[in-house]
Amino acid sequence: MFSFEIIAKDQEARAGKLVTPHGLVETPSFVAVGTQATVKAVSTEDLGKIGNRVIITNAYHLHLQPGEDLIQTMGGLHRFMGWQGPLMTDSGGFQIFSQGAGKEHGVGKIASIFPEENDRGRHFSSKTGKPLVTVDEDGVEFISYLDGSRHRFTPERVIEIGRKLGADIIMVLDECTSPLHDHDYTRTAMERTHRWAVRALAEFQNTCDESQTLWGIVQGGAYRDLRQESATFIADQSFDGYAVGGSLGKSKDEMHQVLEWTIPLLPQDKPRHLLGIGEIDDIFQVVKRGIDLFDCVAPTLMARTGTMFVKEAERFRIHILNAQFKDDPGPIDEGCHCYTCCNYSRAYLRHLFVAKELSAVRLASIHNLHFIESLMRNIRTAIREGRLAALSREWLDR
Amino acid sequence: MFSFEIIAKDQEARAGKLVTPHGLVETPSFVAVGTQATVKAVSTEDLGKIGNRVIITNAYHLHLQPGEDLIQTMGGLHRFMGWQGPLMTDSGGFQIFSQGAGKEHGVGKIASIFPEENDRGRHFSSKTGKPLVTVDEDGVEFISYLDGSRHRFTPERVIEIGRKLGADIIMVLDECTSPLHDHDYTRTAMERTHRWAVRALAEFQNTCDESQTLWGIVQGGAYRDLRQESATFIADQSFDGYAVGGSLGKSKDEMHQVLEWTIPLLPQDKPRHLLGIGEIDDIFQVVKRGIDLFDCVAPTLMARTGTMFVKEAERFRIHILNAQFKDDPGPIDEGCHCYTCCNYSRAYLRHLFVAKELSAVRLASIHNLHFIESLMRNIRTAIREGRLAALSREWLDR
Repeated sequence: MFSFEIIAKDQEARAGKLVTPHGLVETPSFVAVGTQATVKAVSTEDLGKIGNRVIITNAYHLHLQPGEDLIQTMGGLHRFMGWQGPLMTDSGGFQIFSQGAGKEHGVGKIASIFPEENDRGRHFSSKTGKPLVTVDEDGVEFISYLDGSRHRFTPERVIEIGRKLGADIIMVLDECTSPLHDHDYTRTAMERTHRWAVRALAEFQNTCDESQTLWGIVQGGAYRDLRQESATFIADQSFDGYAVGGSLGKSKDEMHQVLEWTIPLLPQDKPRHLLGIGEIDDIFQVVKRGIDLFDCVAPTLMARTGTMFVKEAERFRIHILNAQFKDDPGPIDEGCHCYTCCNYSRAYLRHLFVAKELSAVRLASIHNLHFIESLMRNIRTAIREGRLAALSREWLDR
Repeated sequence: MFSFEIIAKDQEARAGKLVTPHGLVETPSFVAVGTQATVKAVSTEDLGKIGNRVIITNAYHLHLQPGEDLIQTMGGLHRFMGWQGPLMTDSGGFQIFSQGAGKEHGVGKIASIFPEENDRGRHFSSKTGKPLVTVDEDGVEFISYLDGSRHRFTPERVIEIGRKLGADIIMVLDECTSPLHDHDYTRTAMERTHRWAVRALAEFQNTCDESQTLWGIVQGGAYRDLRQESATFIADQSFDGYAVGGSLGKSKDEMHQVLEWTIPLLPQDKPRHLLGIGEIDDIFQVVKRGIDLFDCVAPTLMARTGTMFVKEAERFRIHILNAQFKDDPGPIDEGCHCYTCCNYSRAYLRHLFVAKELSAVRLASIHNLHFIESLMRNIRTAIREGRLAALSREWLDR
């Protein structure tokens, strides 16, 4: 029911076909983020028209709300959310640990070089003074951000949740370290993540179901020796696919290095996913290093603030609330064929954002998702035709 | 370019065809409310699929934001908002005066019998202490709720705005009295509204454009003599259609009386619009008294709070956040063929509302609008087949 085939290579970049019980994904592919069983502000019908083929939801968020048991009762995640295409579930490792060390250090996947941006939260409960997240050999305990209730995830529990949700691709539970963790702690966490990976795989095999696959996650922070050790260890387990997770350093350059240390050690014949990265310039960088799939909230997150992708704009984006767009009759992006660009002007989109109309967010999200999807189609074609470098120059060297 | 034809009658109820330069509206018809040049949370494509044929926008809101000049520059309202069907523009009389006397009295179209519900606002500027709205013979001056700027509407100015917006149907400027205004003031306001109607019609005829029509509005509050005087006067002017506006009393029974005093005095061969009324039970009441068109924010306003129309529920509605729907696998309404009901369960809709996902509002709005549209189709068929009373009993007598 599952297969992955590489149909063309252009240097390290690969064009492939990932077959799942819910259909085919041509790679490299953007994976739309549907954390709470919906891609924010758009419908599954919208995604179908845009051309999105695969959605990643989040076992941690869905466990807290509405709960995996309810989703199972409703016929599984595909049926619950009305999406008949391929689905992934991230374990929520990143989300759990970003409430702990991530908040302690105030960082996400890449630490900001501006210290004030690294201090956005608390890592202790404001009520009890206890830590929000505690990790031990068995698993991780955390407090729900919704109601303060305590929950425990173990590698086995994540498989159980994944079985109930029924996604095509389950990600193992991993411990995500922060870019500000030192080498010692990052090693400790990585080794624990490896033991968890072995346990997850055993549990997955014990509950055999050919309709799902389990993917491993490489950790090791931005430390070369640890990334290489982790890639070697995880590659050695019989996962169906491999993700690169956790801290990717303090800059985009460090992120590229992490990929260069890691990717060559992963099996050539298995799909590779990069978790949580994908601004426009990143896309070329990760694809040319051999990534097949990546997910990123940027298209929908930016849409909610009125930031929309435009090929010819600085950093590939415009902010529609800028006064210059007030009487602009053109579409968001010339040449874009999305529903928004075919039907509405920049002036109208700006009006909807100024007037705080909900439709604004959907129309902007449709555009941004379509923009990425269209870019990915071009990238796949370029790889098949051996001209990815030229396409990359066209976009990045200006 | 315009015509109105009655093709069947069932007692006082009429089934008709209103032809406009932007297409046909079968009446009686619900008019979707698109105050700010968008029906809240849905796209014009959604409306097309639902079967909505006509939208009413608001000259007052669009004058304040983004301004009629901008919309004219963008090619007019149809092109600006991407809607190629028939469009009405309400003058904003109700919105302007509900900032004045409406807020003073704390009431809308029908005063609540609960005094605390009649006291929701202020009618003086919090900064200057001056009244927010002042009316004189020439017109009405008001302060923008957006930025405190002063604006003046006259009957002629509303025609000018209407010309720039380009809607198929323009409503004249009227003074909306509150249900708590006495007979004397209501008469004074009504007589001024009549003089405004004459001026509006003269201005409209001076700026002749066959692509638009001008509709008059009957005032007179909930006073029988005034409503009859107003209906007689307005009917005597050569408007293309007639609306019933302003205060409709202190109860639904008073609203029905207002219609019974007014409607028989309006021309039989012209369309009749009831401004701002249309809960499910109201629809039968107004249609059987000879109303052809009505607009109401209820379907989209209720949708935003998770209240959805269901034929077999108490007051034709359920509140999806109720715990009983948590694991309900059925559609919002059995037998409904809208996009939402065809694809999603009550459990999923409830999850989206609990998780505060934007898609929830769109899916709920699509359902509520479709529900009304479907009911209107049934009502039109019933009128043509002479069984409106039976359909009304089926819905209302339970």
